Amino acid sequence: MSMGGLSVDVVRILTGGPGDVSGLVKLIEAGRLDPATIAAVLGKTEGNGGVNDFTREYAVTALCDALAPHLGLPPRKVEEKIAFVMSGGTEGVLSPHLTVFARTPGNGRIIAAGSKRLSVGIAQTRDFLPEELGRAAQIEETAAAVHVAMADACIDDPRDVHFVQIKCPLLTSERIEAAHERGNKTITTSAYGSMGYSRGASALGVGKALGEIGDDVHEDQVLKTWDLFSSVASTSAGIELMHNVVIVMGNSPRSASPFVIGHAVMRDSLDAAAVIDALASVGLRAADGHDPAAGSRLVNVFAKAEASPDGCVRGFRHTMLDDSDVGSTRHARAAVGGLIGGLAGTGAVYVSGGAEHQGPPGGGPVAVIARV
Amino acid sequence: MSMGGLSVDVVRILTGGPGDVSGLVKLIEAGRLDPATIAAVLGKTEGNGGVNDFTREYAVTALCDALAPHLGLPPRKVEEKIAFVMSGGTEGVLSPHLTVFARTPGNGRIIAAGSKRLSVGIAQTRDFLPEELGRAAQIEETAAAVHVAMADACIDDPRDVHFVQIKCPLLTSERIEAAHERGNKTITTSAYGSMGYSRGASALGVGKALGEIGDDVHEDQVLKTWDLFSSVASTSAGIELMHNVVIVMGNSPRSASPFVIGHAVMRDSLDAAAVIDALASVGLRAADGHDPAAGSRLVNVFAKAEASPDGCVRGFRHTMLDDSDVGSTRHARAAVGGLIGGLAGTGAVYVSGGAEHQGPPGGGPVAVIARV
Amino acid sequence: MSMGGLSVDVVRILTGGPGDVSGLVKLIEAGRLDPATIAAVLGKTEGNGGVNDFTREYAVTALCDALAPHLGLPPRKVEEKIAFVMSGGTEGVLSPHLTVFARTPGNGRIIAAGSKRLSVGIAQTRDFLPEELGRAAQIEETAAAVHVAMADACIDDPRDVHFVQIKCPLLTSERIEAAHERGNKTITTSAYGSMGYSRGASALGVGKALGEIGDDVHEDQVLKTWDLFSSVASTSAGIELMHNVVIVMGNSPRSASPFVIGHAVMRDSLDAAAVIDALASVGLRAADGHDPAAGSRLVNVFAKAEASPDGCVRGFRHTMLDDSDVGSTRHARAAVGGLIGGLAGTGAVYVSGGAEHQGPPGGGPVAVIARV
Amino acid sequence: MSMGGLSVDVVRILTGGPGDVSGLVKLIEAGRLDPATIAAVLGKTEGNGGVNDFTREYAVTALCDALAPHLGLPPRKVEEKIAFVMSGGTEGVLSPHLTVFARTPGNGRIIAAGSKRLSVGIAQTRDFLPEELGRAAQIEETAAAVHVAMADACIDDPRDVHFVQIKCPLLTSERIEAAHERGNKTITTSAYGSMGYSRGASALGVGKALGEIGDDVHEDQVLKTWDLFSSVASTSAGIELMHNVVIVMGNSPRSASPFVIGHAVMRDSLDAAAVIDALASVGLRAADGHDPAAGSRLVNVFAKAEASPDGCVRGFRHTMLDDSDVGSTRHARAAVGGLIGGLAGTGAVYVSGGAEHQGPPGGGPVAVIARV
Repeated sequence: MSMGGLSVDVVRILTGGPGDVSGLVKLIEAGRLDPATIAAVLGKTEGNGGVNDFTREYAVTALCDALAPHLGLPPRKVEEKIAFVMSGGTEGVLSPHLTVFARTPGNGRIIAAGSKRLSVGIAQTRDFLPEELGRAAQIEETAAAVHVAMADACIDDPRDVHFVQIKCPLLTSERIEAAHERGNKTITTSAYGSMGYSRGASALGVGKALGEIGDDVHEDQVLKTWDLFSSVASTSAGIELMHNVVIVMGNSPRSASPFVIGHAVMRDSLDAAAVIDALASVGLRAADGHDPAAGSRLVNVFAKAEASPDGCVRGFRHTMLDDSDVGSTRHARAAVGGLIGGLAGTGAVYVSGGAEHQGPPGGGPVAVIARV
Repeated sequence: MSMGGLSVDVVRILTGGPGDVSGLVKLIEAGRLDPATIAAVLGKTEGNGGVNDFTREYAVTALCDALAPHLGLPPRKVEEKIAFVMSGGTEGVLSPHLTVFARTPGNGRIIAAGSKRLSVGIAQTRDFLPEELGRAAQIEETAAAVHVAMADACIDDPRDVHFVQIKCPLLTSERIEAAHERGNKTITTSAYGSMGYSRGASALGVGKALGEIGDDVHEDQVLKTWDLFSSVASTSAGIELMHNVVIVMGNSPRSASPFVIGHAVMRDSLDAAAVIDALASVGLRAADGHDPAAGSRLVNVFAKAEASPDGCVRGFRHTMLDDSDVGSTRHARAAVGGLIGGLAGTGAVYVSGGAEHQGPPGGGPVAVIARV
Repeated sequence: MSMGGLSVDVVRILTGGPGDVSGLVKLIEAGRLDPATIAAVLGKTEGNGGVNDFTREYAVTALCDALAPHLGLPPRKVEEKIAFVMSGGTEGVLSPHLTVFARTPGNGRIIAAGSKRLSVGIAQTRDFLPEELGRAAQIEETAAAVHVAMADACIDDPRDVHFVQIKCPLLTSERIEAAHERGNKTITTSAYGSMGYSRGASALGVGKALGEIGDDVHEDQVLKTWDLFSSVASTSAGIELMHNVVIVMGNSPRSASPFVIGHAVMRDSLDAAAVIDALASVGLRAADGHDPAAGSRLVNVFAKAEASPDGCVRGFRHTMLDDSDVGSTRHARAAVGGLIGGLAGTGAVYVSGGAEHQGPPGGGPVAVIARV
Repeated sequence: MSMGGLSVDVVRILTGGPGDVSGLVKLIEAGRLDPATIAAVLGKTEGNGGVNDFTREYAVTALCDALAPHLGLPPRKVEEKIAFVMSGGTEGVLSPHLTVFARTPGNGRIIAAGSKRLSVGIAQTRDFLPEELGRAAQIEETAAAVHVAMADACIDDPRDVHFVQIKCPLLTSERIEAAHERGNKTITTSAYGSMGYSRGASALGVGKALGEIGDDVHEDQVLKTWDLFSSVASTSAGIELMHNVVIVMGNSPRSASPFVIGHAVMRDSLDAAAVIDALASVGLRAADGHDPAAGSRLVNVFAKAEASPDGCVRGFRHTMLDDSDVGSTRHARAAVGGLIGGLAGTGAVYVSGGAEHQGPPGGGPVAVIARV
């Protein structure tokens, strides 16, 4: 980003289905959002969040179709300009929505000396081979991309990074087969299982880039050494891509945005205190449901949830990992979504499942963006 | 119950599976629980909570088998002496467990003038025909049984009733067929759908008995007139019985129990304030996860959850009712269980799904039992 | 259709996902399929076939996007020209695919006196209000549309109609709410349940149009009077439309197509004999897996499947209707797909779930198209 | 078994639920089945067949409770005398039932020179440690147990073995944790995934015992080298045991049973020809639904089903392995159950999921028992 800094606008848009772009189009047509400034769109779509969740690619297709004429691009080219991360699964109170991040040049404006405001930076890795998922290549390439995205966001200090959203690939029967035909073995032959490996390796890449874990992290530690984690990584696996997309969110001294971001770390799925801390970090109180003013300052909460891998939450057995009917990511999103939704006063929050190496085992990062 | 009043003991026991009775047996063998005093057992089991949730009947079978020798009864007779209510579904952080209520004569002991303590009373209706479920007969018989259970609990004032747990039947293909062969139509031909009708009619029976709704409630209002509800009813449908079992929980001036109960009403699935109020009603603060003393006083939280029938929670669209993969009761238990678990600091809470006419639409009662 | 008759071409195209149009585009670009002649596309997509199966609308969106430039139309206009019917659910061996029907003028060609060949005709009803679904309006409008489609297909004799595919709407929370706001009650408040009513009423419309059931069919008989049915109706409910699309398939003396169609009626889900009869009606033997020639003549099998509403198949209890984890339509498609797939030697067959009033209770129509 | 040979009786009993033992009790009370002769019970129960399928242990509990008084044993001791194998999952047309095998001394009776009749033999391995599942210990111990069971069945020639049913353990979060505490790693940390490893290693043990694969089979080949398989192994994983139970079924020259068994191998899920061959091997024709005599001779069909690991059935893509809502074993049972049910004319057949190393990849053994 240029020397003159930047400004970041962010808006949450409710959707009526994975193909619903009407809210976004309305904002553009009303002149309230310049499509040329859109840098990233994070969405929650109402699929199962699993391997066969086609709502993610459907939503991206619909967004590209809708934005293409406004950008003067063919639909396929829109994805090269804007980072789309759709996280499937709106269990329980979670409500499907989009969060749109727009960036404009800051023109050298300074909010105030020492003041830091919301900034967003984006980068991508190269395409991975199926056999590279969950392994060193994915860790290394991701770490490098995080640095590129920080620079893009005008953020120098890793402590100013509050959320790193990554979209990463998963394995399908076809991709596994393709690797086998090349004589290579993928890290797992389970499509559902591969989502965890891809998320985990990507998160370790973030931790390495931000100095949260040592430089010597090894691919054998993916989904094994649970005390290695990033406190701000949030990674989602999807069938629709073969590379990692990295979106760094933080506060930059060179941003003139009217928004700020903060975060805390949930140490388990019951950690109400961390959610309250995250809200407090941007000046919000936990919703008592009677505070519309606070409600209007909140833009969104971004969090990761997972079933604790040891089968217990705070000493009590959970059954999420042994349920052959409903995947554990669905369980975890529903539960953590219920807690965050209750404390934030809204179900239109971004809670994503599968928090391998994203926060401590069974826990995860929780970030909040609010209007100053 | 006798003139001399009563005392009620209550203990929560974690389980390792629906057939696990080891914790209960251990308490009995250690002399810490007299099996002859057990009046009721409420359990959360790890099934789907739906029509084909056999964990409920399996748990009851295992409990009867385990208690029979201690009571000198054949297993089948145990159910006549003890009220068992197993609620299927431990989604998200919810942890399978049993809550055992034991009653002993009070021997005229008085705690203190004006002091009221936990009491429990039990009653049953006659068996229903399949075609009576969800209709007037179920409402009327339930209302009558609530009065019998209140007397059994030495509770005169409806305001001292804080939770009325009911186990009620559901329809199966066979039962529907049986009704058809008698020339009668059941209220629905969907087994899953019948669970809602049975729960709803039972809840209206509670509301009628406690004066929360008028005497003129009509069967056509079941699952239709959503502003008719009881604030303390909690009804669960199960395949294993054809009558209603009614368990009234409240505070009685004639109880010498070391426990008290209180409640609040969640107005929707996000109502953190109501959960905090319910905890406060028995002198507990919302868990900050660092308060072991408070934790040790909490016995359990009892709540009902449901997907708001209008498809929205506090103005935000939810997708629970349109999910053909995961039933809406599973979604609702997971979300509300996440919120209550986070605020109570434990997932071993009794959150049951399907809150038709139990609290306002989309909401439900939340009761807390604590040691004084 | 014109006096000069018509010819119908039909091709089955395998897909790699609900958004995969590459096979279709390849045929067009190779000059083997004139996009301007495409009249209808029937597809099996890999969603759950339930309320929240967005793969259907995603597939239609992708097809419209792909065909638009070839037709010189904006994507939205493609649906007005071509009838798309996507049936969700490829359980078990079922393989996602499209069947494309193309129509060209026959130019007065006659195959042979008395010879009848494959023909296809299309019609649509007006949009329905949510409260009209499953009721008289849907029956009547559908019956009228079947007559229009028969004329379009140059078929006069109802006995020459072998399959009538209909796409019909379903209710969602929003649509139910909209009806309520108008002061009207929808036939059910269950989104999943509404799919059955809509399919059932549409099938009775077909039966009425073809004289299979009396003119006096009444809306109270929908999902009640199971001995009223059409032997050739196949109806699928989808969230993406509010009107019925009717596709009549049969043999016409004025068709010059190189294909023929025949059908039989499965009387239950185990009816292997009916599948064999349907194959025989177009000159094919049940696959022994070693008959590539026969295989190459087969274009596709079209069938409807359902869980027998009385809970039994040929006297043996089934558990499809009592399964709260997997919907009964998924069960039925998987089982009947397994039987038809085994006898046809391929899983790329069109087996659709929910056969209310489509064939006898628990059974359904099975049609086969083959090259002459 | 004694020198005098043996006789085997076999009866199929329909059930109304996993805890329903009424049919069995009725046979015993009517004097038509001597409980002391019961050697094995194979059942299909209506759970999900996955990790949290408690219908299996519930059914075994109910059977032990019911048989205990008839055998003069405490319920826990019944399992030491009788081999119970409950296979969860009655998808599609599959109908819950029990198959009871009873053995009596043959008293030296000879049916006819050269004639071989149904025989059954049983053996058990020692308990395994969690970390032994899916590895060499499970292969070796199983192979040894197969030889013991063959001797028990008076079968010398491996070609006379037509079905080897094995019940084997699976991993749970607790068992994985226990291994970790011992410093050992289990073969997988996924409970669902462990079922496949346990089934696969057990099947390789059968193949080794019967000479179908070489003696040098190595644990690294489990779930890897798919062309190693047994054509008669059928293995089911369940949460309720930690050892393997082995039931060998075949024809013995020393059996005086009125029944015979035969088998064929399905090479994929569409292999109707193999099902027809298996029926023919005991003198039955594929059901045309009009042949009650043939129907009365059929006792049961025993088969294994699985989703082809390469993602294709006979060249057509299937979606079973990429479905995050419904496990692939449920899909495969439903599809193959539909095919076998249609050809056998009944859904009360024993089709079990997860055919790793049981038949060729994507295929599986299919055995038929019929009255001579």
